[in-house]
Amino acid sequence: MGSPRRVYVGAFAHCKSLEELDICDAGAIGVGESGRIEFIERDVDDISSVLEKQGWKGVKVVKIKDHGFFFPGFIDTHIHAPQYPNAGIFGKTTLIDWLDKYTFPMEASFSSLARARQVYNRIVNRTLSHGTTTAAYYATVHVPATNLLADICHAKHQRAFIGRVCMDTMSPPNYRDTSPEDAVAATRATIQHITSLDPSHSLLIPIITPRFAPSCTPACLSALGRLHKETNLPIQTHIAENHAELDLVRRTFPSHPSYTAVYDDHGLLGPRTVLAHAVHLSPAEVALIRARGAKVSHCPASNTALTSGAAKVRELLLEDITIGLGTDVSGGYSPSVLVAARHAVMVSRHVAMGSGEGEGDAAKLTEAEVLWLATRGGARALGLEERVGGFEVGMEWDAQMVVLGEGVGVDGEGGEAEGPVDVFGWESWEERIAKWLYNGDDRNTAAVWVKGELVHKTQAFSG
Amino acid sequence: MGSPRRVYVGAFAHCKSLEELDICDAGAIGVGESGRIEFIERDVDDISSVLEKQGWKGVKVVKIKDHGFFFPGFIDTHIHAPQYPNAGIFGKTTLIDWLDKYTFPMEASFSSLARARQVYNRIVNRTLSHGTTTAAYYATVHVPATNLLADICHAKHQRAFIGRVCMDTMSPPNYRDTSPEDAVAATRATIQHITSLDPSHSLLIPIITPRFAPSCTPACLSALGRLHKETNLPIQTHIAENHAELDLVRRTFPSHPSYTAVYDDHGLLGPRTVLAHAVHLSPAEVALIRARGAKVSHCPASNTALTSGAAKVRELLLEDITIGLGTDVSGGYSPSVLVAARHAVMVSRHVAMGSGEGEGDAAKLTEAEVLWLATRGGARALGLEERVGGFEVGMEWDAQMVVLGEGVGVDGEGGEAEGPVDVFGWESWEERIAKWLYNGDDRNTAAVWVKGELVHKTQAFSG
Repeated sequence: MGSPRRVYVGAFAHCKSLEELDICDAGAIGVGESGRIEFIERDVDDISSVLEKQGWKGVKVVKIKDHGFFFPGFIDTHIHAPQYPNAGIFGKTTLIDWLDKYTFPMEASFSSLARARQVYNRIVNRTLSHGTTTAAYYATVHVPATNLLADICHAKHQRAFIGRVCMDTMSPPNYRDTSPEDAVAATRATIQHITSLDPSHSLLIPIITPRFAPSCTPACLSALGRLHKETNLPIQTHIAENHAELDLVRRTFPSHPSYTAVYDDHGLLGPRTVLAHAVHLSPAEVALIRARGAKVSHCPASNTALTSGAAKVRELLLEDITIGLGTDVSGGYSPSVLVAARHAVMVSRHVAMGSGEGEGDAAKLTEAEVLWLATRGGARALGLEERVGGFEVGMEWDAQMVVLGEGVGVDGEGGEAEGPVDVFGWESWEERIAKWLYNGDDRNTAAVWVKGELVHKTQAFSG
Repeated sequence: MGSPRRVYVGAFAHCKSLEELDICDAGAIGVGESGRIEFIERDVDDISSVLEKQGWKGVKVVKIKDHGFFFPGFIDTHIHAPQYPNAGIFGKTTLIDWLDKYTFPMEASFSSLARARQVYNRIVNRTLSHGTTTAAYYATVHVPATNLLADICHAKHQRAFIGRVCMDTMSPPNYRDTSPEDAVAATRATIQHITSLDPSHSLLIPIITPRFAPSCTPACLSALGRLHKETNLPIQTHIAENHAELDLVRRTFPSHPSYTAVYDDHGLLGPRTVLAHAVHLSPAEVALIRARGAKVSHCPASNTALTSGAAKVRELLLEDITIGLGTDVSGGYSPSVLVAARHAVMVSRHVAMGSGEGEGDAAKLTEAEVLWLATRGGARALGLEERVGGFEVGMEWDAQMVVLGEGVGVDGEGGEAEGPVDVFGWESWEERIAKWLYNGDDRNTAAVWVKGELVHKTQAFSG
């Protein structure tokens, strides 16, 4: 079982804390057959002496190229796999009309397994190519298609949370659960299938997925709360994305003090709950989320594209809320977490500008901070912080090899770089990583590993 | 002189008006030796009969691939060529400290021609690869380096405005003009060089470039105003980018009623003036800009990244101000006008959200509108609307061939697309173009022409 032992040699970077990007320009990371990191050496100038010291002589070495570095795999805490064909198609809609016009019709079409096979293969390939080693997927209501998504993630060895969407009200007649019992039974069927693929849930994890409060009856929410209590499986849902939705929740759940309280009152708010968006929360709701230890998935591109709002990430961080990043395809148009991190910087600037002169400066997120959200933050949000999101001995090798422009013309003529990032040679490591954050894309992600296994590579990789 | 006649066959799209994207799915566009469009045929199902009808039999045909289309070349109305190595490097700075920390040191280094050669070759290659057929460049104060930028654009056949930057105050001692006379003499030297390369300014146009009001003495502004009056050459500068800059202008020019009036009072505000940013203008300033017929370059990515503000593009459009898009490298991190257009959509959402409930909806720009800004709007801003920005008989063939994902798996297995855009086959043309706008990149720009001459191609192009 597992891959043979390998040593990854060269520069690496990962987030040590929210503020601190730890960069090692000559490292060696040994990964054992279990896919776990067994040693990390820094200041390596002679790899053979490292191998000798570790007793790993003869083991395969994967070397980084110039201007490249190993980085933890990205964690997408919120992505709707069936919506991928709609990426970039949203026009001037906002949440509720966007659901009716684009989303429900597309998702409903996943009653066809052929459709599901085509789209799910594509999106899993895409997310892997963008360095997403863990994704928390929403599927659709359909059990066969949801199980197929699990099969595809299993086959491609992506770490994935697979959520069969539950919705028994305010949904199209041809695309909904017919009863709470139906929602639970269908969810159980997917849990069973996922567990048959991966009995210990080491890479594939079922996740209980009420779409959002307005699309579930109280009975359905309660039944899913009980299912969580019984199984201790994680939960994902949406919260406080836009104003019309807040109104809808107030009308639909008039006796509950807040949107957050709706989930709490139905047993759905706990340390294993991931709440997407969290754009418009009251202080009382933030306090309740913190008290329950629930997590937030920040989806900056989606929130801007659908004119939902700008989430106050700094405020949430200061309140000790755990936050990860979500691409929220297709509310967000890009399946890349790197792009989501870029948007997180940009949205934080708008939050800063909206807060009045000067004062808002603290709202600005740094490059290091958004990369923390994209890795460590996401891992914490999904309860995987002991296993992925950084490079530590004992953690699993979910990683990407990032290569930056290598065509710097030594003759001064400015030869072409291979990817979208131009490195001129004088940049500091921090500056190279900033260049990658802002202009990089899947061409810079030369190889991707999940739990030690190579799951994606480009022609730039010859490992 | 010029290229041989060619006929471009297949789908094409261009902006007919701000609101209307005109899409023809079976066209044929004939381009003569002068690089001008000589005929446009629609609903073509037999190209040979078109060639016969036009008397163009035997002429070379360039065919579009499936899911691809011809589109006008992009027009970047504001880009600082020497700042390209800093793309993505801005941290938490805002305009004034960003200038001091990153920009002036980088620009000052262009006293070295080797540096200039390396960077200018790279950025011109990059912009061409992103489909930028016209760019309004700021260079530096250095005459040799500015002339070299002109040489490089000339050699690579990019349509370019070349602006030698003038600044005789509030600039580093090692990077400034020593007097207004110095600024004018140096500008004249670059005008002379550019005119020697392209006597009729058919592709290369000198542009008078006071950096911005605070970095020029009144005598320098007046002298440049006189130079404009003498030569009728266009002018480019910055206006109303951030609040600290507004304060600086108020302190530096206390007797002028507004920032816009400073330019007007020095003979620098007219129909050939391009003002970058225009984020914080008073109604009186907007009225003055309209009265003078001056133009605006909207730089959305830069304005967000540097926390400058969010330009109210819809308001300016409703006031009949002509607007184009600027990448504003390196205040903006990307040299791609497609990315700038994407940011224009996103920034317009933030403007909409900042305007209070519901009311702000009109602020939202559509995909068609931002593509208009990227082509027709830019052409108007630069006084080229009769020549480029759309496909009309008599206009010059500044165009790009856009190809979208072609790897749609017919077996339902979801084969890989070649670029970043996945087309599943059922999308309308409008949806394909939206997908390109939001997820496309230089891989989708298979070929680029300026005035009929092929100036860039990828492996996907075999014309």
